[in-house]
Amino acid sequence: MPVDAARLGIGVFDSGMGGLTVLSALMRRLPHEDMLYLGDTARLPYGTKSPRTVAKYALQCAATLAERRIKLLVIACNTATASALGDLEAGCPGLPIVGVIGPGAQAACRATKNNKIAVIATESTINNGAYQKAIHRLKPEAAVVAQACSLLVPMAEEGWMDGSIVEAVARRYLAPVFGNLSDSAAGLDPADSGGAYPDCLVLGCTHFPPFTGVFRKILGSRVHIVDSAETTAEAVAEALAGLKLLNPQNNAGQTRFMTTDDEGRFARIGEFFLGRPLSAGQVELVDL
Amino acid sequence: MPVDAARLGIGVFDSGMGGLTVLSALMRRLPHEDMLYLGDTARLPYGTKSPRTVAKYALQCAATLAERRIKLLVIACNTATASALGDLEAGCPGLPIVGVIGPGAQAACRATKNNKIAVIATESTINNGAYQKAIHRLKPEAAVVAQACSLLVPMAEEGWMDGSIVEAVARRYLAPVFGNLSDSAAGLDPADSGGAYPDCLVLGCTHFPPFTGVFRKILGSRVHIVDSAETTAEAVAEALAGLKLLNPQNNAGQTRFMTTDDEGRFARIGEFFLGRPLSAGQVELVDL
Repeated sequence: MPVDAARLGIGVFDSGMGGLTVLSALMRRLPHEDMLYLGDTARLPYGTKSPRTVAKYALQCAATLAERRIKLLVIACNTATASALGDLEAGCPGLPIVGVIGPGAQAACRATKNNKIAVIATESTINNGAYQKAIHRLKPEAAVVAQACSLLVPMAEEGWMDGSIVEAVARRYLAPVFGNLSDSAAGLDPADSGGAYPDCLVLGCTHFPPFTGVFRKILGSRVHIVDSAETTAEAVAEALAGLKLLNPQNNAGQTRFMTTDDEGRFARIGEFFLGRPLSAGQVELVDL
Repeated sequence: MPVDAARLGIGVFDSGMGGLTVLSALMRRLPHEDMLYLGDTARLPYGTKSPRTVAKYALQCAATLAERRIKLLVIACNTATASALGDLEAGCPGLPIVGVIGPGAQAACRATKNNKIAVIATESTINNGAYQKAIHRLKPEAAVVAQACSLLVPMAEEGWMDGSIVEAVARRYLAPVFGNLSDSAAGLDPADSGGAYPDCLVLGCTHFPPFTGVFRKILGSRVHIVDSAETTAEAVAEALAGLKLLNPQNNAGQTRFMTTDDEGRFARIGEFFLGRPLSAGQVELVDL
């Protein structure tokens, strides 16, 4: 009996819990799909490690998901997309793969009016230049300012997502990109300032959406914030529709979770990013 | 011809660069010894991971060092000492092993006058209770207050070791231990306050010595700060002397470095912790 490919799940992986923001968007956009999430928490973070090491880990994650039979792979991690998309495409022939950078770059290019785009991400994603390249491919005239914000990753995992310390850290990272922010309580207006500042900020790391409130407070309402989780979910929906691999509408999607380290910690911190309850009993421990 | 055991080196490992503070103390205390340092940067940090995972990684690090022939192993990582000392002793029979927790606990017990000791460390070290147990073994009447300070690890690696943000983060972590610190510009006096506060702070993570100035500013001069790097170096010297394994005084010690990820990043960030210049060319890349 042939396998009904449409009934296979969507595989999603990340270095840890941040990718759950992408999973959450996928669950909202595609409620009839089964999802299988793998967080490589034993080796997180990926964002301060070399492309060689990240590619090795990403291939192991993809192989583990592929063994469980999936119809599409989502790289829910900007660093892994930047460092390993090509390796994964070569290593998983025939498996459709969607990363988070392409959809994020696309949304930014649609949103900007003054063609100045700021990207914040991990050290590795910024050094790799993947966002810069993806944006220039779509909009060669755009000016891209990139800023590594390494500390926001552990801050999100510590559950520090607002308050004066978080705001001070965010200001320190954003100041070189948006100019002197110390008296910008009313928010920046990129149009008023003669187009000096970017009018669009791409959250180029899946750990950053929880800081949206802080970024909004610092930058005001006139800087457009792009969260690539939503746009990635849309790209996955389009890809599955094009391949005729969408589940029937009467299917109630199931989601399973795997982690490479402590299930309890994964569930406890994962809830923040997933935005819904998660218990250790729902999480399977796997060894890569 | 039998191997001259005394001429073998001292093996030192850590999850990354923090253990270089211990290596630095060893190099000062034992200038005639050869040292071989391994930083498992591909999988850092250990401090937010489970004891099972940390023990697995620690055994791999020890095996890599043992292959290169060493006469003594230093676990220059509080988390690995807390989670894996027993596994390492079982896995490396005949190899003398020195961790950082015993010497740190000993120094704290000598320093405290009011028998109240504060320990700050990673989440994993605190949850494991290794310092609490080691201190109580030496001084059952001591009260130990333990506080996880997870964010200080990535802050040190980001090179943020002083300034207002670092001070705010340190205050936030220290406040539950030392009471209201907001107006303690003159420093705490544990004696004056009727012995309510600990009079001794153990830096239970090798990433924390660079913050000594900030801690001193917040706590004043009357709280004794224990940096276990120095006491660990002393314990290693005593162990080697006891085993008659000290190098002859005319030997000029050589130090070699190994890392499991990007050599350039290891050298760049490692310099902060080592306190002397380090170039990527001095660092060998190894795969565990």
